[in-house]
Amino acid sequence: MLNGMTGYADDKAKVLARLRRIEGQVRGLQRLVDEDAYCIDVLTQVSATTKALQAVALVLLEDHLGHCVADAVAAGGGEAEAKLREAGEAIARLVRS
Amino acid sequence: MLNGMTGYADDKAKVLARLRRIEGQVRGLQRLVDEDAYCIDVLTQVSATTKALQAVALVLLEDHLGHCVADAVAAGGGEAEAKLREAGEAIARLVRS
Amino acid sequence: MLNGMTGYADDKAKVLARLRRIEGQVRGLQRLVDEDAYCIDVLTQVSATTKALQAVALVLLEDHLGHCVADAVAAGGGEAEAKLREAGEAIARLVRS
Amino acid sequence: MLNGMTGYADDKAKVLARLRRIEGQVRGLQRLVDEDAYCIDVLTQVSATTKALQAVALVLLEDHLGHCVADAVAAGGGEAEAKLREAGEAIARLVRS
Repeated sequence: MLNGMTGYADDKAKVLARLRRIEGQVRGLQRLVDEDAYCIDVLTQVSATTKALQAVALVLLEDHLGHCVADAVAAGGGEAEAKLREAGEAIARLVRS
Repeated sequence: MLNGMTGYADDKAKVLARLRRIEGQVRGLQRLVDEDAYCIDVLTQVSATTKALQAVALVLLEDHLGHCVADAVAAGGGEAEAKLREAGEAIARLVRS
Repeated sequence: MLNGMTGYADDKAKVLARLRRIEGQVRGLQRLVDEDAYCIDVLTQVSATTKALQAVALVLLEDHLGHCVADAVAAGGGEAEAKLREAGEAIARLVRS
Repeated sequence: MLNGMTGYADDKAKVLARLRRIEGQVRGLQRLVDEDAYCIDVLTQVSATTKALQAVALVLLEDHLGHCVADAVAAGGGEAEAKLREAGEAIARLVRS
């Protein structure tokens, strides 16, 4: 795929910034565990990190629906159907994870 | 809390190893986004990372129930009830995240 | 909305059949609780019922994306954007529930 | 299991009332679909019903931890460990559903 042709092209900087913050959260988790922090405090941070990851997923998904899927639908035909099924499967993975 | 007094003391090395692997997954996500990978491929990796974080949470939670909560229950009294309520709240946060 | 104009028109019978089965599962849960079934057995059935509800949600969502959203995208303009944002919000509610 | 010996004995009436309300929500969902309600409105109700089911699960789980698991832990031995592992598996099913 060519540079900038992804559904999240407009949100790329925002998505990268969020992922860097999530990387920091995961390193913070390692520090907590390394310092024998109380289980519940570690769990609270795991929940916060999971929520942050899901928020990134929702940005990516909306961008994907609004660009890649929308373009395929506008073009019509079998490609539209394939893109919709693929998006549905990605949503199912998110809902179940 | 003193060194080794956490519920996850026996699993500390395992939990740290998993968190380091998750940090690697988050850095891999940044690389994917930086290289304009296809949205669905990024989403698949986000789902895998979320699942890995939840698996860590489940290890921490079982250790917490089996040690901190079990000890409080064995000691009895208000502390047992407080620990159980606290664990219930942590589980609720996990289920909702 | 006129009869049959929903995104799930083709899956209506299937969705209704699944919802009736879920109603049966919820009645089965009441029976289990009424008969003082073991907590874990009740919880296992609650998880199965939740999964069944999420499966219905995924059918509805794919139908919605493939019809209502696809039509709005094909028509273009502000309606397409509104439909995509609305779908994104519904997905977020599912992921968080 | 003898009558009233479950972990949720004290909450039995509350749990049954909630399950009856959830049954009503599932019947409401059938009505919405039968009347060709807008997909997003149906999805919103599915999310609400899923949340209600998870709330029931959390009540049952806290009761189970506070009674069945606590009793086994107080008694000690292999039974305590078995109960803790069983509870951990039930929590994992909830988190993943």
